[in-house]
Amino acid sequence: MSNRQIDQQPPVTLLSDFGDRDVYVGIMKGVIAQINSRLRVVDLTHQIPPQDVAAARFSLMNAYPYFPVGTVHVAVVDPGVGSKRRAIAVEFAQGFLVGPDNGIFSGVLSQSPAIAAVELTNLNYWRTPQPSKTFHGRDIFASVGANLASGVSLKQLGKEIDPASLVKLDIDKCKQTTNGVAGCIQYIDHFGNLVSNIPESYVQGKTWCVQAAGLNIPGCETYSDVKVGEIIALVGSHGWVEIAINRGNAHSQLQINLQDALQVLFL
Amino acid sequence: MSNRQIDQQPPVTLLSDFGDRDVYVGIMKGVIAQINSRLRVVDLTHQIPPQDVAAARFSLMNAYPYFPVGTVHVAVVDPGVGSKRRAIAVEFAQGFLVGPDNGIFSGVLSQSPAIAAVELTNLNYWRTPQPSKTFHGRDIFASVGANLASGVSLKQLGKEIDPASLVKLDIDKCKQTTNGVAGCIQYIDHFGNLVSNIPESYVQGKTWCVQAAGLNIPGCETYSDVKVGEIIALVGSHGWVEIAINRGNAHSQLQINLQDALQVLFL
Amino acid sequence: MSNRQIDQQPPVTLLSDFGDRDVYVGIMKGVIAQINSRLRVVDLTHQIPPQDVAAARFSLMNAYPYFPVGTVHVAVVDPGVGSKRRAIAVEFAQGFLVGPDNGIFSGVLSQSPAIAAVELTNLNYWRTPQPSKTFHGRDIFASVGANLASGVSLKQLGKEIDPASLVKLDIDKCKQTTNGVAGCIQYIDHFGNLVSNIPESYVQGKTWCVQAAGLNIPGCETYSDVKVGEIIALVGSHGWVEIAINRGNAHSQLQINLQDALQVLFL
Repeated sequence: MSNRQIDQQPPVTLLSDFGDRDVYVGIMKGVIAQINSRLRVVDLTHQIPPQDVAAARFSLMNAYPYFPVGTVHVAVVDPGVGSKRRAIAVEFAQGFLVGPDNGIFSGVLSQSPAIAAVELTNLNYWRTPQPSKTFHGRDIFASVGANLASGVSLKQLGKEIDPASLVKLDIDKCKQTTNGVAGCIQYIDHFGNLVSNIPESYVQGKTWCVQAAGLNIPGCETYSDVKVGEIIALVGSHGWVEIAINRGNAHSQLQINLQDALQVLFL
Repeated sequence: MSNRQIDQQPPVTLLSDFGDRDVYVGIMKGVIAQINSRLRVVDLTHQIPPQDVAAARFSLMNAYPYFPVGTVHVAVVDPGVGSKRRAIAVEFAQGFLVGPDNGIFSGVLSQSPAIAAVELTNLNYWRTPQPSKTFHGRDIFASVGANLASGVSLKQLGKEIDPASLVKLDIDKCKQTTNGVAGCIQYIDHFGNLVSNIPESYVQGKTWCVQAAGLNIPGCETYSDVKVGEIIALVGSHGWVEIAINRGNAHSQLQINLQDALQVLFL
Repeated sequence: MSNRQIDQQPPVTLLSDFGDRDVYVGIMKGVIAQINSRLRVVDLTHQIPPQDVAAARFSLMNAYPYFPVGTVHVAVVDPGVGSKRRAIAVEFAQGFLVGPDNGIFSGVLSQSPAIAAVELTNLNYWRTPQPSKTFHGRDIFASVGANLASGVSLKQLGKEIDPASLVKLDIDKCKQTTNGVAGCIQYIDHFGNLVSNIPESYVQGKTWCVQAAGLNIPGCETYSDVKVGEIIALVGSHGWVEIAINRGNAHSQLQINLQDALQVLFL
């Protein structure tokens, strides 16, 4: 590989529920540097609630489109570590996915289907043939991800498996109603914005409002369309209808929670 | 550009109120890698309290002097996103500033004046000509910052504007009194140290004490000048008079808060 | 140094109690980039409890084995900053250690002895000959670490000192009993797993259980050996006997704390 190719190499991203108090994430970066110290590593987040595969699925699905083609996404939210759940790597149009086969990638793959998948059975690409029973992030996934980003092909990593056999974790889809769309809150971000499962396409070019928790909330374009402290519905940056409060925290102020229902009404 | 120039390229820094739970920061790094995967990215902090432009201003003002000349600082604390506030890039002696025109850079520029400024009107350097109304950090600022760090000139980024027209956000200055200086607390750090708005120059070479919350606190050189648990006043690492407790938390133990008054007395 | 050597250079790691709210860590990275913008920097953690040298010692001891030979570990948990405690750099088989001489490195060095040590007395490798009295992380340790990683030799950094003179911070060792091992909890991780001071070697190949807080806990191989919500003892990923709850938080659910006693019993 020429210098240029290496230097233009896409990054490895890491996503986990490891938090930032312990050295688990740092250790994964050490393992990657031991394999190829030139690889760039980008943290997506390590604050997924412990063992919350659904939140990890949502986060990864929203992040992957913004990375260079060929990026290797290593995702480790892995309540089944040490059990018989498969360890996998998946190739899709924008790059590669490496982690446990527990549905964590099913959001990405619902938008951009798998091209090929392998079970990680080739111990040559693990950090050690006798991995810890509790930390596959270090002993399998970081090591495999670094090898993949360094030019090892997907097929070398293990035995091919049918992408249709991958574990799926799908959230309820929103449903069209006579005069709108019925959905629910699928994610609450750091600002307290309440992100629904209703995609932008339903409201584009329409005049609309949202009904939730007994409130009628006007559909707008951006936070500053209303006064400070006012409630607003808008299409958020991830492309979903969301409820926010201009310069406030909709989650704590409205007491609307994950899974709570909301309705979009066309006017 | 030669390899050497690229490899010696200064980093892009990121500062925001995005926190570490969501993938917003990771997405900005993906956008930067899509433009130039060789750029180094350094996080200043993403834990600015939501929409607290004053805290962002203070943090950036304290950090910029320690970066290589030419560093591009992308700062996104942006309560006015989607409104008519301008998106700007500024050149100053030590590098470049990219973000919203809301005063976030006025601390830096009060110390090291703007050489030139542009409004970011050239859509060629945005991630998309139709940016999200809610996430200019991704669609405008990260993209413009990566282009600037990759060699695009300031003038290419948009129409020149008068640096004097930039929004200013100035905190109260401390005031000399007959026998000292009157000021207030402008920042409280992670250790609970209470940072005032009185710069080192006022106390240098003098014998002094601080009066705050009814306490008389001796002016010392470092934490270990007093016993564990004792209250101390000293010039902190950012160059401001601060109140601390040796191995303790002055903020929680003294119940002194942001904006609270303090007096330096010369002895 | 050739391009290749530089590009294959091991990283500099950072560990501190600086948290992620303030720009202290970002400033250390700026200082490193000012010296050599090509160096890779890896965060181990900055969430060590303020001034908890013992937690820092434990974290560094668990992380260093996973980094490339030659890695420079800069660790700054430094309650004695500004006092007469020495600033040191240590060479050991896997790389270098840079920080205060307060025992922070004694866990690493108990596993992999010091080859040579210096007191950091050569001001040429500091950021400034007049360092802040409160932020040696910026003015001495980051600067010295970046120089060391860039090829400066240990001996250039200051006067040689006897490795035997370094401050030691040792935790109680576990003790063999007639039918098992008596130990205590030495660390609690982000998942609430209770990590003891009993190393894997004591239980390897044996049938065993743990007694703690009046409970009898079976020794198993991995979390999923028991049902969701059940208590388990196992060898954790750092190589110590630990107590966990499958998909739960052992620390909060069992109310077992740091320093609490536990017994391994062989069956």
